[in-house]
Parts: sequence; C-alpha cells; structure tokens
Amino acid sequence: MTAPRPDGVSREGRDARLAAWVYVNGAWVAAQEARVPATDRGLLYGWGLFETVRVAGGRPVLLKRHLDRLFRSAPVLGLELPWERAELAALAAEAVARNGLAEGALRLTVTAGPGPVPGPGGGPPGLLLAPRPGRPPEAAYARGWRAAVASVRRNHLSPLARVKSLNYLDNLLARREAAARGADEALLLNAEGEVAEGATTNVFFVRRGRLCTPAPECGALPGVMRERVLEVAAGLLPVEEGRYRLADLAGAEEAFLTNAVLGVMPLVAVDGRPVGSGRLGPVVRELRRVLEPVTGSAPPG
Amino acid sequence: MTAPRPDGVSREGRDARLAAWVYVNGAWVAAQEARVPATDRGLLYGWGLFETVRVAGGRPVLLKRHLDRLFRSAPVLGLELPWERAELAALAAEAVARNGLAEGALRLTVTAGPGPVPGPGGGPPGLLLAPRPGRPPEAAYARGWRAAVASVRRNHLSPLARVKSLNYLDNLLARREAAARGADEALLLNAEGEVAEGATTNVFFVRRGRLCTPAPECGALPGVMRERVLEVAAGLLPVEEGRYRLADLAGAEEAFLTNAVLGVMPLVAVDGRPVGSGRLGPVVRELRRVLEPVTGSAPPG
Repeated sequence: MTAPRPDGVSREGRDARLAAWVYVNGAWVAAQEARVPATDRGLLYGWGLFETVRVAGGRPVLLKRHLDRLFRSAPVLGLELPWERAELAALAAEAVARNGLAEGALRLTVTAGPGPVPGPGGGPPGLLLAPRPGRPPEAAYARGWRAAVASVRRNHLSPLARVKSLNYLDNLLARREAAARGADEALLLNAEGEVAEGATTNVFFVRRGRLCTPAPECGALPGVMRERVLEVAAGLLPVEEGRYRLADLAGAEEAFLTNAVLGVMPLVAVDGRPVGSGRLGPVVRELRRVLEPVTGSAPPG
Repeated sequence: MTAPRPDGVSREGRDARLAAWVYVNGAWVAAQEARVPATDRGLLYGWGLFETVRVAGGRPVLLKRHLDRLFRSAPVLGLELPWERAELAALAAEAVARNGLAEGALRLTVTAGPGPVPGPGGGPPGLLLAPRPGRPPEAAYARGWRAAVASVRRNHLSPLARVKSLNYLDNLLARREAAARGADEALLLNAEGEVAEGATTNVFFVRRGRLCTPAPECGALPGVMRERVLEVAAGLLPVEEGRYRLADLAGAEEAFLTNAVLGVMPLVAVDGRPVGSGRLGPVVRELRRVLEPVTGSAPPG
C-alpha cells in the first residue's frame, strides 16, 4: 500500500508531481521553475494560509467555501488580501484549464510576503496556485482508514487552531508518526485530552443515533467538508458539536473522517481497536451517496 | 520609540534591511535576488528550523551552541542535515566577512526542501544564511522591557516547543498583540496557565534569592542565551528550573528576558504592573557584566 498524501491524493508515481504550470506572484511559470523570494515571511515564520481544493470533472469543487474560509482567516493573521474573490476564482479556473486537469487537487497558498517583523507592513501578500493530478483512493472508501492517536497535542488555545495556516508542522509530524505505526491518519487530542481532529481531516462519529463532531473550541479546524457534512447530515439525523473523549469515539456505532479532497472516509479503527463494526456504516454510506453530486466523487467500492 | 524586532535588533531605518549578500542553497546572491523553490516544504508547511545568531565585533557569537541546537533539533523534524558543523561555521563566517558586517544578526535557516508529504524523502534540505546589520537597543537595557501576557497559549505538548522551527506564528501573533498594547514583548503561558517563555525570549526571575526559569517541559524554548545564563548564574546564586505561575513572577525581586541577540534584558513590568523595583536589578547588572565578554555587548546605560 502506498501511504496517501495528507490530502488523500495518492503520492504514487506521477500523482505526486505538480501539474506543468503553476501561478506564482503574478506569473504562470513551469512548476520546476517556480520560485518565491527568500525573504517571504511565509517561509521565515510560516506566516500565511492555504487551501487545498479538490478538482473533479475539470472544475474546482466547493471553491466558494474555500475562498470564504481564506478571507475569514486572513484577519486572524493580520493579512490584508488585495484580491477579490472573483479574481482568485478565475485564477483557480485558469490553473485547472491551463493544465488540462480533470481530477486532482489545487493548492492555493497566501503568504505575508517580504516585510518587517512582527509587522504589519511590507509589500503585497504572496500568492501561489499549484495544481496536481490525482484521484481519491477509491479502494480505501470500502476498507476505511485506521487512525493512531498522536503524541503531539493540538493547541486549541491558539487562534491558529481556527485557520489553515502554513504552521502545519504539528499535523505533519503527527501524520508521520501515524504512518510509522502503520496507520492511515493521526488523531490529535487537545491539551485537555479531548478529541480535536485528524491530522489532515475532521472527525465525526455516530453515537446513540446522533452524529457528533468536536466543536471548534476543542481545536477542530473548521474544514470545508466538515461544514458541508454538518449541513447535509442535519437532514438525516440529530447532529451535535461538542467536547468528546476517546472513549466516546471508541463506543461509537460508526465513525468517519472528512476533508475537501477525500470527502467522507470511514474510520474503522483507532490504535488497533475497531470503531463500531469496523466496517462501512449506514450513515457514512448515506452521506457519501448524498454528497457525491457535490464532490463529484464516484461511488465507493 | 521604534518597536524592536523579535530578535531585539531595531527595525528602524537601514537596520531592517538585509546585508547585500545572502547564501541560498549553494550560491551567494544579492539579497533582493534571493529565491527559493515554491515547492520547498519549508514554505508549504513551515517544515524547517532557524537560528538567529548575534554578530559582534565582526564575528558570529555563540555559534557553536547555535549549531549544536540546530543539529539536536533536526531529528525532531525528521530532517537529515547533510552538512558538517564546520562547513556551516565557515559559511557563517563568510556571510559576515562578505558583507563586512561588524554588528548585527545572522539568520541561518534550514528547510525540508522540495519532496513528498508527509515524507521523509525528497531532495536535500534547503539552506539560507541571511545577515543584517543592527545594534542591540542599548538605551533599553537601562530602562528595561515591559511585557504583556498573550492571549495565545504556548503548546508545551508538542515536540515543536523544544525546537526553533519555522512554525513561529504563535510567537509572532503574540508579539503583534503585545506591540498593539504598547508592550515590548509578549509573555506566553502554556495550556495549564504556567509561564512558558517570552515570544522571542526566555524568562528569568529572582525570588527569595533564587534564580528561577520555566523548565523546558513547560514550553520554554531551550534558548542559546538561556543555556549560557544558567551556566554563568550557577556561580552567582542558587538556580532552579521549574513550573511557575504569573503570581510567582509578579512577586519577584527582579526579572529579565534573554535571547541570543539581546543578551540579558531587564523585565520591569507585566501587564502594566511593575516587577520587583521596576528597575534594573543587581542580578541582571551582574549577569550583564559577566556575560559581556561572551556576547561582545557594550555595558548598559
């Protein structure tokens, strides 16, 4: 098995490579030539944000929600975005079109650009759009993902917990640790021992017929797919955002993970112990069926 | 008053600018031309480390300690450094010499470079050396710094708390918040409400004749100057690393902050309330006197 990338796109073979053309600070350039200033505060301090947008059927999926989150997050980092949403949407469409990309993911990165520290001030923010081909790991949807609880804790007492910033190393290290233990994903607890999120996903579980997911104040990143699932699920069963322990998850009828590229992925085990039946549950199945027209995903299995 | 940079070098006027020549991934280039690959995982995820080395009398100060910390930290991030310490020391000396830099700071940055996620793998790490001119804020040593307690908490339950990584945004945001409240530095507590560190400094205080500083397990970055001060102070008074609350600091006889560029800076107030006499204390005075030959700093006031 090839370890999936954090966003769920396999890194096997060509899939790991960027598409031919990327957009960097105002110009379309060949991916292998793409450069940013070494003084960009995105590099120096991780001062920036990113969105990983699924591309399906040649179109960016849920792009408006991604852009909404980006613009909502910018003030948390003291970033003033000089672009209109429509401008970024047009660039996203162009990134897909220029590369003839049918299926894959588009990473949109905004950086603070060069300038003084701790700021504000400096030049305009940096802007990168980097598409890459790839397909969601279809076989995995039938089998489900296995998670390992990370030793690193999610810092739910930082404003960064509410945004998808370039300070992504806690999640990356958690994911590496999980991979080393043979798991597909890492599960992060916050400093109080509550379930926060997956390293690259949000966590949901069904317990006594209710759909439960950690509240943002526990350190759950407000994921684009999390938001979409909460809306769709509200028509299917009672839904709650709350504070949960691992025991709550362990006692669940079924569980799943979400992100913008994966969509809805069954979570079948945590630290080697099965969750629910350890197989694809009815709520996951129904959510995937309802969400498919939205995400453009093929049905599982 | 001009707000100091996080490393204590004034950003007023020319001091904020990089020196003319920087080293980027194998080549010396003009600072304004310096570029890194847009696919560097240092930019994409903050996957990397940095050291800010003081330059005094035309020499990098405490360079061996900085390099020791860098090599000690690399495995925490899964980075394999392909350089010898002597090689990096020679580059540091060349960075200073090429620019004719007498006083200032040299930032040494190591990134994961381009490659797969979550790694390991990929090409060699990236390496940047960026010197800039500047002098420690001499007038401030006599007056002391005022700190504000940050709303963001230090994540002491992450391995990143033990290394100086490119995930530096919590500290930067804390510093911005402090500056907006008219303070010189931010004080970060951990999730348990214990004092962890300053945003860009380590914290020390004298209480009942003992020198106290937060233990690394509280989230104190193992600062190069912190380590040096602990050694020197051991010859002057009893020293302890422990877990402390703000009340312990508030009741201190005197307090100070340290970093590699600032050296030892009196801390005279927290959230507007004086610490100790609110003036330069005898332990700070003595430490600065003893450390001057090491740091190359001029005497205060």
